[in-house]
Amino acid sequence: MDALRATYRLRVDDPVAARERAEGLGLEQTVELPRSTLRDPFVLAQIVPEVESVEPDPEGGFRTTLAFPLATTALDPAQLLNLLFGNSSLQEDVVLHDVFLPRALREALGGPRFGIAGLRAAAGAPSGPLTCTALKPMGLAPDALAELAGTFARAGIDLIKDDHGLADHPFCRFEPRVRACQAAVEKAALETGRRALYVPNLTGTPQTVARQWRFAADCGVGAVMVAPMLIGLPTLTELLRDAPPLPVLAHPAWAGALRIAAPALLGRLFRAYGADAVIFPHAGGRFAYSAAVCGELASVLREPSPPLRPAMPVPAGGMSVERASEVVDFYGPDAMLLIGGSLYDAGDALLERTRSFVEAVSQAGSAP
Amino acid sequence: MDALRATYRLRVDDPVAARERAEGLGLEQTVELPRSTLRDPFVLAQIVPEVESVEPDPEGGFRTTLAFPLATTALDPAQLLNLLFGNSSLQEDVVLHDVFLPRALREALGGPRFGIAGLRAAAGAPSGPLTCTALKPMGLAPDALAELAGTFARAGIDLIKDDHGLADHPFCRFEPRVRACQAAVEKAALETGRRALYVPNLTGTPQTVARQWRFAADCGVGAVMVAPMLIGLPTLTELLRDAPPLPVLAHPAWAGALRIAAPALLGRLFRAYGADAVIFPHAGGRFAYSAAVCGELASVLREPSPPLRPAMPVPAGGMSVERASEVVDFYGPDAMLLIGGSLYDAGDALLERTRSFVEAVSQAGSAP
Repeated sequence: MDALRATYRLRVDDPVAARERAEGLGLEQTVELPRSTLRDPFVLAQIVPEVESVEPDPEGGFRTTLAFPLATTALDPAQLLNLLFGNSSLQEDVVLHDVFLPRALREALGGPRFGIAGLRAAAGAPSGPLTCTALKPMGLAPDALAELAGTFARAGIDLIKDDHGLADHPFCRFEPRVRACQAAVEKAALETGRRALYVPNLTGTPQTVARQWRFAADCGVGAVMVAPMLIGLPTLTELLRDAPPLPVLAHPAWAGALRIAAPALLGRLFRAYGADAVIFPHAGGRFAYSAAVCGELASVLREPSPPLRPAMPVPAGGMSVERASEVVDFYGPDAMLLIGGSLYDAGDALLERTRSFVEAVSQAGSAP
Repeated sequence: MDALRATYRLRVDDPVAARERAEGLGLEQTVELPRSTLRDPFVLAQIVPEVESVEPDPEGGFRTTLAFPLATTALDPAQLLNLLFGNSSLQEDVVLHDVFLPRALREALGGPRFGIAGLRAAAGAPSGPLTCTALKPMGLAPDALAELAGTFARAGIDLIKDDHGLADHPFCRFEPRVRACQAAVEKAALETGRRALYVPNLTGTPQTVARQWRFAADCGVGAVMVAPMLIGLPTLTELLRDAPPLPVLAHPAWAGALRIAAPALLGRLFRAYGADAVIFPHAGGRFAYSAAVCGELASVLREPSPPLRPAMPVPAGGMSVERASEVVDFYGPDAMLLIGGSLYDAGDALLERTRSFVEAVSQAGSAP
């Protein structure tokens, strides 16, 4: 069966290090264990990805292609993202460069329901480049946006989309906006004989987006826009199963989200959105966070911020039993130490090694 | 009313450029128009964020804090992400450094339902640092994972979580896995008198995660784990409204997703997940993509990849009417040109400027 292939760029200097980094990447993205601890033959044969190539990258460093056995994806849209760039997205020396989805995965995901041909049909534009513009700025009332929509429609634009910052604002509610803008393009169509597609921006939680989608379809809009990285890529895929058939315009907002400081994303935002405990790589492990960043992240998770309850910091990522007391000293008692690979290292002595870990934490936590 | 404040780090050299960049950032994140085109007094007073400070960053460059009027958030979880780092996440000279959610937003989001105290209560660990480990590797069958869970529980670990790579795999289905692991910690509790919390990993589309959550709760698990960046932060918030009350452990997988080449994320993945048309910044505008990247992205969206329909490339981002024919030459006819601000520049001549754009594209598209 066809594998899932992904190409990564590695910031390493020599071929030996590159090969080793590529192997490590494959382990990180699947078993999260050193190869030496893997004993199950099925795991070795069917789970760990094959390093298909490691070669110098014309732009510097090395490039590697990994082949993940298809079964590791579970044909699941969220697990696919995780396999491609889950933990490794937190490591600074690697870039996900390209993705090759085998046919079975493409079938599972489904892809565009309209595609270029369907979009052209919806827009009544069988050939030639299409034109599109945006209704803006945020802050205008539905009538003012509708007037703009009418102007653009009369000028012959094919698709007139909301700015992606237009949400269900108190000063411009989604429903009156969509109704007014759609009416404006329909009115213009009576004058010009050619109908522009009005494309409302849908945003919010999955149920909100689904509700907006149905409303927009009932109003007769020609397509919808979402920002998949805001609503979640798996959410988009699920919406397409049940939502009324309309072409989807995808907006790239938030697609550069790495460049958010860890305390802001994993600390403030994860907590505000409802996490009771947040796992993050502790300094000195196999990820790149500094001690200062870890300390700030923990403090952001725990500091008073009513009505938000404090959330538990969960330092993880390549910690060892030996470091337990240092980590407890660093975070204090309101923390949960997450340790994995270093326990599995113990092989048959797993119970004893784990007991040592529990005892080390307990002793460190009760030290004066 | 309290504003939403965000601090950004700017890669600029001098105070004048920094102030200008900060103003530009505030416009990009809200109105997506140059200030000169803003005429509506409500927009100027209530939408455009105030640049509260611009100061040298001890780590180089400058740091600025913007205050967004609360109403711009619509108190919506997806729109909040967009305001904080929507378009600007695609610009290379800016990092979202910190976020200060006013009380009204914290109330709207809700935050942790258990928090540290609730998690401690669930774990029966009222004080001291907690311990946690992970069930791995992916590839083991439910019984093997359950055996590990039992060993960890007997060793006294507080929380035993699934590896975040454990999905609903054909070789290890979610339901038997959760049943077996929960039974194992319960059996160990009979021996030791102390119950470890088994924490299954939930992953998939929103409805899948909701179903897994209910199943896990019915099995009696003590907490659940999700990766908010895989399932979508707004999805997490919505799940917390209706899902059975269990503490949530958040995993950071995919939180570094910027370092994915644009053709892979916006091209292959957005298409595979169902976008019919994908908006992206065309080279030479106010974003950082090169012509080579744009060309590759367009080709990835359109190339044969059965059964996926081809998706329409939508170059955008600071294009002008004058560039229309160059852009059409670059992408060919299967493209949609998205132009916004440069039309709004025309003020009262919006209709005429838009007509010029439509005509320029039409002429370029029919050139031999």
